[in-house]
Amino acid sequence: MTKIDYKKILEEIKPSKSEINKVKSLSNKLISIINQITIDENINAETVLVGSVAKNTWLGKADIDLFIKFPLNTSPDYLKEKGLHLGYKCIKKMNGKYECRYASHPYITGLIDGHEIDFVPCYNIKHPKELKSAVDRTIPHTKYVKKNLNHQQADEVILLKQFMKSIGTYGSEFKVGGFAGYLCELLILHYNSFEQVLESASTEWKPGYHIDLIEYDNSPLFNEPLVVIDPVDKNRNVAAAVSLQKMSEFVAASRNYLKKPSTLYFYFKDVTAHLNSIKKEFTKRGTKTLLLSFKTPDVPIDALYPQIRKTEKSIVNLMERKGFKIFGSDSWSDEKKLVIILLEFSIWKLPKIKKHYGPQLWFKDDQEKYLKKYKDKAWIEGDRWVAAVEREYPEVESLLEVSLTDIKIGYLRFGKHVKNEILKEHKLTDLMELLESNKYNNLVLTFLHTYLNKSEILWR
Amino acid sequence: MTKIDYKKILEEIKPSKSEINKVKSLSNKLISIINQITIDENINAETVLVGSVAKNTWLGKADIDLFIKFPLNTSPDYLKEKGLHLGYKCIKKMNGKYECRYASHPYITGLIDGHEIDFVPCYNIKHPKELKSAVDRTIPHTKYVKKNLNHQQADEVILLKQFMKSIGTYGSEFKVGGFAGYLCELLILHYNSFEQVLESASTEWKPGYHIDLIEYDNSPLFNEPLVVIDPVDKNRNVAAAVSLQKMSEFVAASRNYLKKPSTLYFYFKDVTAHLNSIKKEFTKRGTKTLLLSFKTPDVPIDALYPQIRKTEKSIVNLMERKGFKIFGSDSWSDEKKLVIILLEFSIWKLPKIKKHYGPQLWFKDDQEKYLKKYKDKAWIEGDRWVAAVEREYPEVESLLEVSLTDIKIGYLRFGKHVKNEILKEHKLTDLMELLESNKYNNLVLTFLHTYLNKSEILWR
Repeated sequence: MTKIDYKKILEEIKPSKSEINKVKSLSNKLISIINQITIDENINAETVLVGSVAKNTWLGKADIDLFIKFPLNTSPDYLKEKGLHLGYKCIKKMNGKYECRYASHPYITGLIDGHEIDFVPCYNIKHPKELKSAVDRTIPHTKYVKKNLNHQQADEVILLKQFMKSIGTYGSEFKVGGFAGYLCELLILHYNSFEQVLESASTEWKPGYHIDLIEYDNSPLFNEPLVVIDPVDKNRNVAAAVSLQKMSEFVAASRNYLKKPSTLYFYFKDVTAHLNSIKKEFTKRGTKTLLLSFKTPDVPIDALYPQIRKTEKSIVNLMERKGFKIFGSDSWSDEKKLVIILLEFSIWKLPKIKKHYGPQLWFKDDQEKYLKKYKDKAWIEGDRWVAAVEREYPEVESLLEVSLTDIKIGYLRFGKHVKNEILKEHKLTDLMELLESNKYNNLVLTFLHTYLNKSEILWR
Repeated sequence: MTKIDYKKILEEIKPSKSEINKVKSLSNKLISIINQITIDENINAETVLVGSVAKNTWLGKADIDLFIKFPLNTSPDYLKEKGLHLGYKCIKKMNGKYECRYASHPYITGLIDGHEIDFVPCYNIKHPKELKSAVDRTIPHTKYVKKNLNHQQADEVILLKQFMKSIGTYGSEFKVGGFAGYLCELLILHYNSFEQVLESASTEWKPGYHIDLIEYDNSPLFNEPLVVIDPVDKNRNVAAAVSLQKMSEFVAASRNYLKKPSTLYFYFKDVTAHLNSIKKEFTKRGTKTLLLSFKTPDVPIDALYPQIRKTEKSIVNLMERKGFKIFGSDSWSDEKKLVIILLEFSIWKLPKIKKHYGPQLWFKDDQEKYLKKYKDKAWIEGDRWVAAVEREYPEVESLLEVSLTDIKIGYLRFGKHVKNEILKEHKLTDLMELLESNKYNNLVLTFLHTYLNKSEILWR
């Protein structure tokens, strides 16, 4: 065991007693308000506190999650209407601000006393088979953790979450593809302590590793890199969102921590991007880097990142298919105005001709067709016809410009909203020219720095 | 059947009656001289005429092959000594010039009355099992063809050989990797006529095709592209030397001929190399072409070509292994002074860094070792460590120079004699610079033209 003073760290990162009391009493007050309205308006619903506040495992500013349970036979329309109505009335009563949001499921969010409160209508299920929407699982999840996680373990969860955050592997949303809060709780329930999670990850985890708290013995069902079977639903892998990349990063950071423990792992690393070192590094590499930038489309964050990634991946595939070579790529958005896709090329220029492989000579009809077209330029390699034909795009810029402008050509697969923004307007900039021009902001510099120093935050 | 006047072609390409008589009487005279010497010197040997002269299937200037058969129990030293001695004495008697040669087997060659005469000592075998050297098969081959090939068919062999020559697929020696004379004879014995050979090649041949005149039913033994089982030795594939390339070229030319027959197929194609069109073509391609030239090593032709090819192939492999890309390569020698290996690159320059892939993260010990070396530059891709490391050779020229000079580095596999010549002296020239400099001869231009127009001679 390490000699880190976890108590001291917890004192710094855990919410204070008074903060906890404040959050708890606010939650209770909100619940009693909604319950009063349901009585007044004769609505058959019950409101419960769920999520990290209910489980005492939150970090930083508390987000309060209130789930409004309706009976299973409620119609979806009624559930949605009354659920949003109850949230709305409650926020109004507290003089808060509100906003309606749609995930896979509609809900209303209020800002009250500086806290974000989600009011989520859901069904009151007794068994996973009754599940109507992903949110219906939240209540059983909360119940399971509250019943099994003791106070000491709740602190261990906080340590694990904080560690995950500072090394960049926390969060199951698409932007991260890492470990959800509930997953961290299950890991502590399974391993008992923060250090034991890291110990097992360091030495035992590998793709296909599975954790099965209830011994459902159901793991062959899943083929994600990490499998943690949901104690309340044996057909669900709680770690399904964890990418191989994030699993690997967590393992690497765990090893680093155990080898040389430091309290610094519980605080964000101060990553400073320096223009000169970025310029120097890209110059030293001798690669060519282009930045494709366009306006952030107006879609929820969880829809934005998959669309950007899909576009990035599709561009990379196209470039490689056409004979160029990508050294690396990345994407970034300020989530408001700007999206950038970075493409670093190790091969960005090709000769004006390429080989066009034809049929094997033994297929006589195919040969005839091929030679009709290419006879003057064709020769035999082994038993295959080959011809030297003009290369349509000898430089990446022209290929990119065409594929981003002429959608009909069908070179790229975009996300729908990203596509529309790119078609409206986009810019293709040579990185070195951008850096010389001083027309960039610090966020872009930080993005470039992070691209060049990918594993920096896995170490302290 | 085509309307080509084969009789007229044969009149032009076949040796004249007087030439035939001259060659036959010279052969007989040589045999009687040797027989007289064997009697005089009490040597137990018998001399026979073999090869295309014996079979009446020769083309152009006749090469006379005389085989001196010794009993099976003769010692190899005696056979060699007396064999060469008999040849030598015979040449002397005829006032010819002589030269000793070594293939897999020593023999003596004389130049008499303008004819090249080979005197080859061999064993008098009755059965393939008694075979001591490849030359021992020649006598049974000659016997088989003489016994089975009629006059009409001998003419068909001459047409086939001439066709093969003019399209560049004739000759089983390493330089060509094509069809030997004996193979052409067997093809005619099997198919009966020149046109029927082409007909079958055009429509039926494909890799693995086999011809089995005696129905030995032995073809599964062989895995060469074309299998023609030797009537006098069922364990031998007469077409073993035929490369997939030459088999394909013959098929392609056969189709071309049958589609549009022309007497031009029986004459060498006039291939003229023009400096300007060569320059223009290479410029249009936008590739980079280097010529590696060195002195022809003093080895027999059949040893020279495999060594050159091996070196060429090894250079191509090295370049591709190091990230460059070869569009095409070729090699050529005047067989006296100069060897040229041509390398045409589609990628000849790379960034100053490259990715160095390390172990999968799950192998902890390997990770430790890797990170000790690369920590500062390493990141994770999926579950694998990767680092950006300096590329030793970002340009083909430096890589080539090192691999051709510093043999210890072991980058290349040369033929032994070629290696020695390259180590002694070699030149690496940019093709465009060479063409601008006018320091090249017409043979080199022809080589370049042929490289650019590989299948030109398959058409008329």
